[in-house]
Amino acid sequence: MSTHSVGHASAQSARFDEPLTLKSGAVVPAYELVYETYGTLNAARSNAILICHALSGHHHVAGYSDPERVKETLGWWDNMIGPGKPIDTEKFFVVGLNNLGGCHGSTGPSSPNPASGHPWGADFPLVTVEDWVQAQARLADRLGIDAWAAVVGGSLGGMQALQWTIDLPDRVRHAAVIAAAPKLTAENIAFNDVARQAILTDPDFHGGNFYRHHTKPARGLRLARMLGHITYLSDDQMAEKFGRRLKGEGLAYGFGVEFEIESYLRYQGDKFASWFDANTYLLMTKALDYFDPAHATGGSLAAALARATAKFLVVSFSTDWRFSPARSREIVNALVHNGQDVAYAEIASSFGHDSFLMKDEQYHAIVRAYMNRIAV
Amino acid sequence: MSTHSVGHASAQSARFDEPLTLKSGAVVPAYELVYETYGTLNAARSNAILICHALSGHHHVAGYSDPERVKETLGWWDNMIGPGKPIDTEKFFVVGLNNLGGCHGSTGPSSPNPASGHPWGADFPLVTVEDWVQAQARLADRLGIDAWAAVVGGSLGGMQALQWTIDLPDRVRHAAVIAAAPKLTAENIAFNDVARQAILTDPDFHGGNFYRHHTKPARGLRLARMLGHITYLSDDQMAEKFGRRLKGEGLAYGFGVEFEIESYLRYQGDKFASWFDANTYLLMTKALDYFDPAHATGGSLAAALARATAKFLVVSFSTDWRFSPARSREIVNALVHNGQDVAYAEIASSFGHDSFLMKDEQYHAIVRAYMNRIAV
Repeated sequence: MSTHSVGHASAQSARFDEPLTLKSGAVVPAYELVYETYGTLNAARSNAILICHALSGHHHVAGYSDPERVKETLGWWDNMIGPGKPIDTEKFFVVGLNNLGGCHGSTGPSSPNPASGHPWGADFPLVTVEDWVQAQARLADRLGIDAWAAVVGGSLGGMQALQWTIDLPDRVRHAAVIAAAPKLTAENIAFNDVARQAILTDPDFHGGNFYRHHTKPARGLRLARMLGHITYLSDDQMAEKFGRRLKGEGLAYGFGVEFEIESYLRYQGDKFASWFDANTYLLMTKALDYFDPAHATGGSLAAALARATAKFLVVSFSTDWRFSPARSREIVNALVHNGQDVAYAEIASSFGHDSFLMKDEQYHAIVRAYMNRIAV
Repeated sequence: MSTHSVGHASAQSARFDEPLTLKSGAVVPAYELVYETYGTLNAARSNAILICHALSGHHHVAGYSDPERVKETLGWWDNMIGPGKPIDTEKFFVVGLNNLGGCHGSTGPSSPNPASGHPWGADFPLVTVEDWVQAQARLADRLGIDAWAAVVGGSLGGMQALQWTIDLPDRVRHAAVIAAAPKLTAENIAFNDVARQAILTDPDFHGGNFYRHHTKPARGLRLARMLGHITYLSDDQMAEKFGRRLKGEGLAYGFGVEFEIESYLRYQGDKFASWFDANTYLLMTKALDYFDPAHATGGSLAAALARATAKFLVVSFSTDWRFSPARSREIVNALVHNGQDVAYAEIASSFGHDSFLMKDEQYHAIVRAYMNRIAV
């Protein structure tokens, strides 16, 4: 179908029976990771790129999962990854996975807890960015990849790319850290906490064990996503796309949909609540809150990054107020301070935090140029 | 007690039996307004100042309501209003009221609907800023005030001050429009809609008729307030006040309070939910969304304000991102375009939107200077 698509992508699964000890001390006795691969691993096994997903992402990064519904089932970063695309699958072997704790097939809160046979629910341990890196490293082992040509991610995905360079410096040659931050601010945490409280206080949450009640906290999850969406978009973009336009003729003086922005947000919220797992949402926001690699080095990000031997591409977007360009520059400054190799681009874009998912000419040209340079 | 306090303030009530037709076409058959007054109306009845409240404000603006608990029962703008204060009650007769639709004694959703004897609940009509101006004008009539020396308000209160100058230009000589905007942006409306959806989808809301179920939608109201608080504060202030500081020792890897900002927000949410009426909250946010005086003049704020004969003081705060200085400058620019009399100050303050309630030396000096100038 699509000329520059990787085509029909099929998910694979890897099972790991060795227990994984998490940063919290909790142990996941065994787990499965669902993943997809695109392109071909070369004989030297040196052209592999790992794509790390953000809050609501998953393993289906490129191509389509249903040949009958190509457009509807395209991967979430299909505009970036494929033959001839910025991350070129004719040159690279690209791996996308669903992280531990996810809700797209990898072991997570909705998976059966071997101890009980029932879904883990509230008993699924909180996982951190560091834990994901360990779990991803085991997948790399399984695939015979000693070192990634690059680890790439946007937002929470970018944090994983950064953590790889610190925790497993020998196993990552390049890191592309896009629309990320070295740690969340109080305001970032505050937004996450409102989202969490919406889920946790939904009567249908049942302390995280809603599965056994054959229900789900759709109200809470919907609110969480509505709020999230506001922080993903830019004020400018909202003004341009929706402004104060009404959905119908004139004001209705009621609490139904009146403004177009209300219609958009409620639709996005409802759609998300219909398919995403609430426990995974909670866990992902906590991983965001906890991320702070400089904590272990007394607050010095430069000290934390000193171990990294990777080269870096850092990208930010002008209207991103969730993780603003200033936050990316903190990473760049730390690397420059250490004399490390870093390229930085601030892209003028009106799409806010979501820009990292958008097809923007300048953005894609920069990623393409960087990736072409590192292709072996 | 407090040396510069108006002292013990007692609420009064005025009943209006003439029906009020609202902008929506709905009719409030009769209503009561609760109000307080400070200072003395002069013989010419020319020294009266009306204070308009914002979303969660009310009539108790200055002084204390309980002499046994002075500090706990101070009015919400006591730092601004009193003997020798910027709005000096030795010169002015100051009136604070609880708006129609409120939950502090004035007729609102929790008041009995004369048609049924039960609380109005969901049947209480939506009121607009224009409706409040009409209701406030009737209170002015009752108090024998033909024209206010000034109408003063912050945020939604500032919008009422602006509307006074348009709807009843002969009855207001000065308007102080503080931390306001001429209309909400899509992003502003989006935040309000998330707050409303939190309340509307709380199972305890019962379609607005929760009173008869002897419950209240505390979960929804709590979330609405938590979210509101984020938008009232500035990112800088949150960083300084809370940063990433933990409440306890180390991470708990759970969903209880971990970061101090979480503790603060949840406390604020719980406190608010314990005393505020959910229907009033809904109605106040709708009044904000609907406010758009330039709508009637094809989008031209200058055309809308051309009727005004008042002189203006417009004040904004540097870190206010809910209604940023740029939004105040829209008002100033429209007035300047018309050749109208306006003084504008942008105050450097770290307290975000909440700055308008804070005691800031520069801010108070400017309000004091303006008010001294207009004292008769």
